[in-house]
Amino acid sequence: MKIQIVAIGDELLNGQVINTNAAWLADQFSSLGYYVAKMIVIPDDLDEINTMIDASFNNYEVTIVTGGLGPTKDDVTKKALANYFKCGFKVDQETRSRVAAIFKNKDVPILEVNLLQSEVPEVATVLRNDHGTAPGMLFKKNDNLLISLPGVPYEMKGIMNDVGFPYISDYFKKEEYYSQSILTTGIGESFLADIISDWEDRLRGEGFELAYLPSIGQVKLRLTSKNRDAQNIAKIKNYIEELKSLVPTYFYGYEGQTLSKVVGDLLKAKGLTVAMMESCTGGGITNELIKTSGSSVYVKGGLITYTNEIKVAIGGISLETLEKYTELSEQCAKEMAENAVKLLKSDVGVGITGLLEDEKGATFAYIGIHYQGKTEVIIKKFGKNREHNIQLSIFATLNFLRNILEEE
Amino acid sequence: MKIQIVAIGDELLNGQVINTNAAWLADQFSSLGYYVAKMIVIPDDLDEINTMIDASFNNYEVTIVTGGLGPTKDDVTKKALANYFKCGFKVDQETRSRVAAIFKNKDVPILEVNLLQSEVPEVATVLRNDHGTAPGMLFKKNDNLLISLPGVPYEMKGIMNDVGFPYISDYFKKEEYYSQSILTTGIGESFLADIISDWEDRLRGEGFELAYLPSIGQVKLRLTSKNRDAQNIAKIKNYIEELKSLVPTYFYGYEGQTLSKVVGDLLKAKGLTVAMMESCTGGGITNELIKTSGSSVYVKGGLITYTNEIKVAIGGISLETLEKYTELSEQCAKEMAENAVKLLKSDVGVGITGLLEDEKGATFAYIGIHYQGKTEVIIKKFGKNREHNIQLSIFATLNFLRNILEEE
Repeated sequence: MKIQIVAIGDELLNGQVINTNAAWLADQFSSLGYYVAKMIVIPDDLDEINTMIDASFNNYEVTIVTGGLGPTKDDVTKKALANYFKCGFKVDQETRSRVAAIFKNKDVPILEVNLLQSEVPEVATVLRNDHGTAPGMLFKKNDNLLISLPGVPYEMKGIMNDVGFPYISDYFKKEEYYSQSILTTGIGESFLADIISDWEDRLRGEGFELAYLPSIGQVKLRLTSKNRDAQNIAKIKNYIEELKSLVPTYFYGYEGQTLSKVVGDLLKAKGLTVAMMESCTGGGITNELIKTSGSSVYVKGGLITYTNEIKVAIGGISLETLEKYTELSEQCAKEMAENAVKLLKSDVGVGITGLLEDEKGATFAYIGIHYQGKTEVIIKKFGKNREHNIQLSIFATLNFLRNILEEE
Repeated sequence: MKIQIVAIGDELLNGQVINTNAAWLADQFSSLGYYVAKMIVIPDDLDEINTMIDASFNNYEVTIVTGGLGPTKDDVTKKALANYFKCGFKVDQETRSRVAAIFKNKDVPILEVNLLQSEVPEVATVLRNDHGTAPGMLFKKNDNLLISLPGVPYEMKGIMNDVGFPYISDYFKKEEYYSQSILTTGIGESFLADIISDWEDRLRGEGFELAYLPSIGQVKLRLTSKNRDAQNIAKIKNYIEELKSLVPTYFYGYEGQTLSKVVGDLLKAKGLTVAMMESCTGGGITNELIKTSGSSVYVKGGLITYTNEIKVAIGGISLETLEKYTELSEQCAKEMAENAVKLLKSDVGVGITGLLEDEKGATFAYIGIHYQGKTEVIIKKFGKNREHNIQLSIFATLNFLRNILEEE
């Protein structure tokens, strides 16, 4: 099956926006066993869109089009689709009442342009958008499908996950291969490859594929079998179990999980609460933990002791520690973790202090964790980019916490 | 002038790699005044590449092709180009000695595949690569240009900056348009369009273009003039000044700025310090502020009072307030902002409390800011997605703070 991914939008063509939608869609299709043959980006232009629609129905079983569905004047995708099918517009009542409800909830008046979003070409099948206003639309011709979606990533993803992918899988009734991804953190791609090289050789020897997918703070590994028979699926699962035992310190979960959710689940399962005292991450660790729904059960709160004055006045860090070792020290991180527990009356305490910006890239953070009467401190070293260093500090702290909680 | 950007590579089509090269090239072309008409991604496949080369020379004055020049077997771009021009290969001596020198410098033996990188199609003009091994190549047909570059971002960028862009500018001797982008927050795309519709009509009436580029928490507006003469540039600048006075509450800066940096600059200019007491955002506001380099001058720190117990014990919120109004109240936000100032001895205090997750999407946050003896509290309403609501709360708080600091 040939799939095409189309993005419409001048903001992509002038480089203001990076086409992450295409990569996400391709990744999802790939893990469902489908092959993306082409990606294109074209402008918000009726003629160009018309040419694209025609070429899509003639050459691709599935075309996903993102963008150009907003309420403003420069969005023309819907009009181009109606022109192509020589049809008028209909009002989708479900969308209309859903859009009205969204504005009512927000307590803001609804505008005519917003209600216009419930108008779709007569030949379209509406794909419900539970994440925003503009609905997705499905068109068929020559047994081929074209799905038009809003360009806002979370709306596009939501519609595809809720109705788009299930519809496509059902319509074509085939799944070409099976893949499973696992998540690691705290180790670079090449070091990981080195540790697991024997395992990788055996995996590949059996005809399976392995892809390394690095991003900031983590490496995702995708294992793929070219068919979905039960025996191969079982083998892939075995390989994953083996991998877990090879790199337990780095392996933290499966595709779709987040490290903060994994840590949250561990805390919840053990009935523990946690509190943070953060300096260099400025609240980033706590903020990452509370992104998970229900986190108030285990997150007590935190102190952001960004300056030394606040470390002493609010964090209770002793002047002696700061004078003797400075705030950039193992001792300070230790005291921060311990005081977090004391002051916020939690079971687990996290303290972090470090230098995340330096011309020569000599950056580092001391991370302390206090649990069951003991405090462990590690140091992590980073590079030149301040924002990445904050991100990497958060990942490193959460993974350290995961390892300590799993140790028992 | 029509420009096309082509990326070749299976790693893009299966979503393993995001096509940042295309966005970078488009952004560079855009700032040089050129217009990118199309972007495509195709596989490492001789036929597909051949079709692309032919379409490129027939339809585009400039085509930039990235990828498929590495030494591994799946890279076939160079072969496809030689086939298309029905020519053989020549050794580029300059590249050959440069590649040999790179390996000598690294003290590693040079392999045959590496030396092969100095072979290019006979009709190619070599574009020197001072950043890696594979050289760039320039081809001409029908007065149109095709430039083939390695896919490694820093090599591709290096070749374009060193020789690619200068060559193109010199060859076509023209600059097509001028654009300027401004950033707004706190208002949706359609409401903004409604407020500025007269302004937009006048702008468009003079032949300028306007694009709305929404993302979570903000809308970027891009104004474009189709030529770069001084009069039009001055007009665009005037339109931007007008826009600022039309929506001062929402307008926060220009392309490349961030809201937290704008707020940080205001605090720094006024010599003020700020402290936060955060509940629902769990440290997200402080974390956003400290992403800016040098923020320790104005960020004192924060208290993350996620539970009511901590609001009382650490935040000093009165039991009476919590009992009478609950923690989800204007009164609580007010007290949080005031206590942040008291406890952390800052000039400005921020308090935020709210409900960011609700099945029906009836979510909201009270945001309090204490400054110069006065406390103002606003309420913001949100939607269903918890993570977005956290993000939107952070944006709303920083913009509220910006407005208060600019009021004076």
